[in-house]
Amino acid sequence: MNHKIIGRLMAFLLLLEGAFLLPPALLSWMDGEGRALGAFTLTIALCLVLGLALLGLCRNAKRDFYAREGFLIVSLGWVVLSVMGALPFWFSGEIPSYVDALFETISGFTTTGASILTNVEGLSRGMLFWRSFTHWLGGMGILVFLLAIVPMGKQGGYSVHILRAESPGPSVGKLVPKMRQTAGILYLLYIALTVLDVIFLLLGKMPLFDALCTAFGTAGTGGFGIKNDSMAGYSPYIQSVCTVFMALFGVNFNLYFFLLLGKVKDVFHSEELWAYLSIMLGAMAIITVDILSLPAYSGHVGQAFHDASFAVSSVMTTTGFATADFNLWPQLARSILVILMAVGACAGSTGGGMKCARMLLLGKSLKATIKQSLHPRSVNLIRMDGRRVEESTMQGLYGYLVAYGFILVVSFLILSLDRLSLETNMTAVMACLNNIGPGLDLVGPTGNYSVFSTSAKCTLMVDMLLGRLEIFPLLILLSPHTWRKAG
Amino acid sequence: MNHKIIGRLMAFLLLLEGAFLLPPALLSWMDGEGRALGAFTLTIALCLVLGLALLGLCRNAKRDFYAREGFLIVSLGWVVLSVMGALPFWFSGEIPSYVDALFETISGFTTTGASILTNVEGLSRGMLFWRSFTHWLGGMGILVFLLAIVPMGKQGGYSVHILRAESPGPSVGKLVPKMRQTAGILYLLYIALTVLDVIFLLLGKMPLFDALCTAFGTAGTGGFGIKNDSMAGYSPYIQSVCTVFMALFGVNFNLYFFLLLGKVKDVFHSEELWAYLSIMLGAMAIITVDILSLPAYSGHVGQAFHDASFAVSSVMTTTGFATADFNLWPQLARSILVILMAVGACAGSTGGGMKCARMLLLGKSLKATIKQSLHPRSVNLIRMDGRRVEESTMQGLYGYLVAYGFILVVSFLILSLDRLSLETNMTAVMACLNNIGPGLDLVGPTGNYSVFSTSAKCTLMVDMLLGRLEIFPLLILLSPHTWRKAG
Repeated sequence: MNHKIIGRLMAFLLLLEGAFLLPPALLSWMDGEGRALGAFTLTIALCLVLGLALLGLCRNAKRDFYAREGFLIVSLGWVVLSVMGALPFWFSGEIPSYVDALFETISGFTTTGASILTNVEGLSRGMLFWRSFTHWLGGMGILVFLLAIVPMGKQGGYSVHILRAESPGPSVGKLVPKMRQTAGILYLLYIALTVLDVIFLLLGKMPLFDALCTAFGTAGTGGFGIKNDSMAGYSPYIQSVCTVFMALFGVNFNLYFFLLLGKVKDVFHSEELWAYLSIMLGAMAIITVDILSLPAYSGHVGQAFHDASFAVSSVMTTTGFATADFNLWPQLARSILVILMAVGACAGSTGGGMKCARMLLLGKSLKATIKQSLHPRSVNLIRMDGRRVEESTMQGLYGYLVAYGFILVVSFLILSLDRLSLETNMTAVMACLNNIGPGLDLVGPTGNYSVFSTSAKCTLMVDMLLGRLEIFPLLILLSPHTWRKAG
Repeated sequence: MNHKIIGRLMAFLLLLEGAFLLPPALLSWMDGEGRALGAFTLTIALCLVLGLALLGLCRNAKRDFYAREGFLIVSLGWVVLSVMGALPFWFSGEIPSYVDALFETISGFTTTGASILTNVEGLSRGMLFWRSFTHWLGGMGILVFLLAIVPMGKQGGYSVHILRAESPGPSVGKLVPKMRQTAGILYLLYIALTVLDVIFLLLGKMPLFDALCTAFGTAGTGGFGIKNDSMAGYSPYIQSVCTVFMALFGVNFNLYFFLLLGKVKDVFHSEELWAYLSIMLGAMAIITVDILSLPAYSGHVGQAFHDASFAVSSVMTTTGFATADFNLWPQLARSILVILMAVGACAGSTGGGMKCARMLLLGKSLKATIKQSLHPRSVNLIRMDGRRVEESTMQGLYGYLVAYGFILVVSFLILSLDRLSLETNMTAVMACLNNIGPGLDLVGPTGNYSVFSTSAKCTLMVDMLLGRLEIFPLLILLSPHTWRKAG
């Protein structure tokens, strides 16, 4: 194991986090929020000291770098970022328990949006900004950012391991031959779309602070709101902007790049995009019809569609903003939302969940299996976007699925110790593992995660990290094979 | 497609079902239950007429027989058996709706044990006997029985397709070179174990009728009781006999054959057996501790273990008998039971569910995937009982898993239209697809399936058949590829 290169990258991460803490610190200073300012300053100082010390310790790192180091850096990196990022909440006393502060920060970085806060509006503006900012940073991946700005030596062969481990979806294509440029392009697209979102929100007369925080939550498909009622209090125009932008951030970013290059044909040939849009629009239509039976919506088709489309866009892209309390909707609507939680957005987007690409591959493999059973001697290749899907991709997919099921079951059992309802436990695990935020019952849009015990919260934190890193990097960190000397 | 051979086998099945209806008819005659006797006689006559007519139509069948015909015979066979088997309930008026009668019969043959009856004790003894007898017939598979007794020509090459499609588990080994003998041995073991069960029940002073019906439900891991409170009213000794025999019928029957041959070593080397016993005993221990917190059990460790072990044995072997109402147990116990529903018994037993062998293979594949990620160039073979698992077996397993998930989701959505609770819908689908019987909430041990609408009942009927036939035979019946002329 090449410890020095791991240490070096952790040092860069700490320094970077210190820099990212400057904007909220500045905000606290401008608003005269003394305690918050102190907490931010202290955390920045800690990041600086620890980062520089680690950098000093890990000079002259060797170039040896394998998949194992890549996985380790990614999983350790996310843990370090979260542990440090939770400090301002705790130092300022705005979240008195460190476990709760860590839960909130992991929920932020993993773009889950699950909150233990019962009164969001009680936080200072600096803390609210930092809370939403973690979504934006976690959405595209901080290590991807690091790759884009920090030159890591000429070889750079390891960057592909990191990008692959941190980016969501079954496979990551290089947009351009150089990894560093690919990372840069992704971040530029991300920034451009976020700015566009802010502009549209400002046009709806949303205050700048609200617009920034909302855009951060939307872009990262996170879902932390700055109001106790999430997005319910904003105008229908602003809610509609959110519906559209949540859906946009759930699309594979490669497609935006193709669009910029004028390769419109490639975009239209993306099977995943069609699957994503079909599932989304189908769900919106069915839920609209289903909730029309509620007295509140009777006859108001427009309002029903407005609320249904917001909920579908929010849950499927795993954002988690809420307008209506979908926990109170009829059973069919609730069931569809639970299933959308698992389906998730597109691979290569900031959204979580299993991803539409995986669902599509599973559907295709099912079809191939049935054909194979009928005609045992036939050869049934699986194709996606016209290209043949490698056997190893399918193996990886099945591995992911098995691990996903396993984690779901274990987490569900640990949460059951708390004696809350089966629906609460089941949807809490789903909402955290898929980085959505709200579930149903006690963790529904109007509920929150403060109801859980510490052990349950810790389990859910691990689930959020597992979900964001798509299980394997973190699972490998925990595997005894990683820590064996040989090999 | 070789239609004549399919017709010929259906004809044999009809005649066989007519024969199997004789014992309950006899019972009705002895008890002087006129309406029941009439209903049985009419059904027997119908079976006879239809069977003979079909036999006449399908003379001179060609010998062409492929996997496709095998799958078709199995799935069609189960549908025909159920459609005819439901007639006595309907003719006698004891179950006034044919849909309900069909639900009850499919639930019987598939050894699910889910009931739409609100008052079981209202049925005549003849009907109760037939209802339990369907469990016993469905447990080992009627087509397997047919193979054992009817000589099908010298080739008999198709029998392996049928045995494979009807027997539960990822793979079926031939015990002896000839398929017909294998089927015969399996049935002899099945009969011997059932007789043993009846003897033990009679020793507990259970009436013969009750003992027979209970043994049928136990042997087939079905779970239809003849009392409204299932097994709660019987003595602790009788309940314990059930606990043990349910567990015994959940073991792979091949192991009993090995035991008879004196190959004790082979039995002890079965990894699945160890997995099955460990999960079962582990679950019993945890649930015992968990329910001790209930006022009813406080201090009564023996009683808690008695009830916990009965529930675990019943749910894990997918039998579905009930003593205590586990729906009222604490959340951890309920969650464990829900998970056991999916795990199921051993492959090659009469039990349903995914089967321990599949779980074991999934765990092994997960381990292999993690190793592979760490050392991309290493070769990680999966072994079971010391033998290498073929790639095609794993492919089949993943295919099964994907189909299972897909069916679960679709059924869950259709049930959601009924607006019952999420927990009811989810566990009803789980209980039917895994052939268990009771679920939680409204379909818990004291509830029943009469709460569902006709569309939900039809969905659950399909789920029960899919579960019993392990999905693919039935899925293939529904696939458009099967019905295309070419190929």
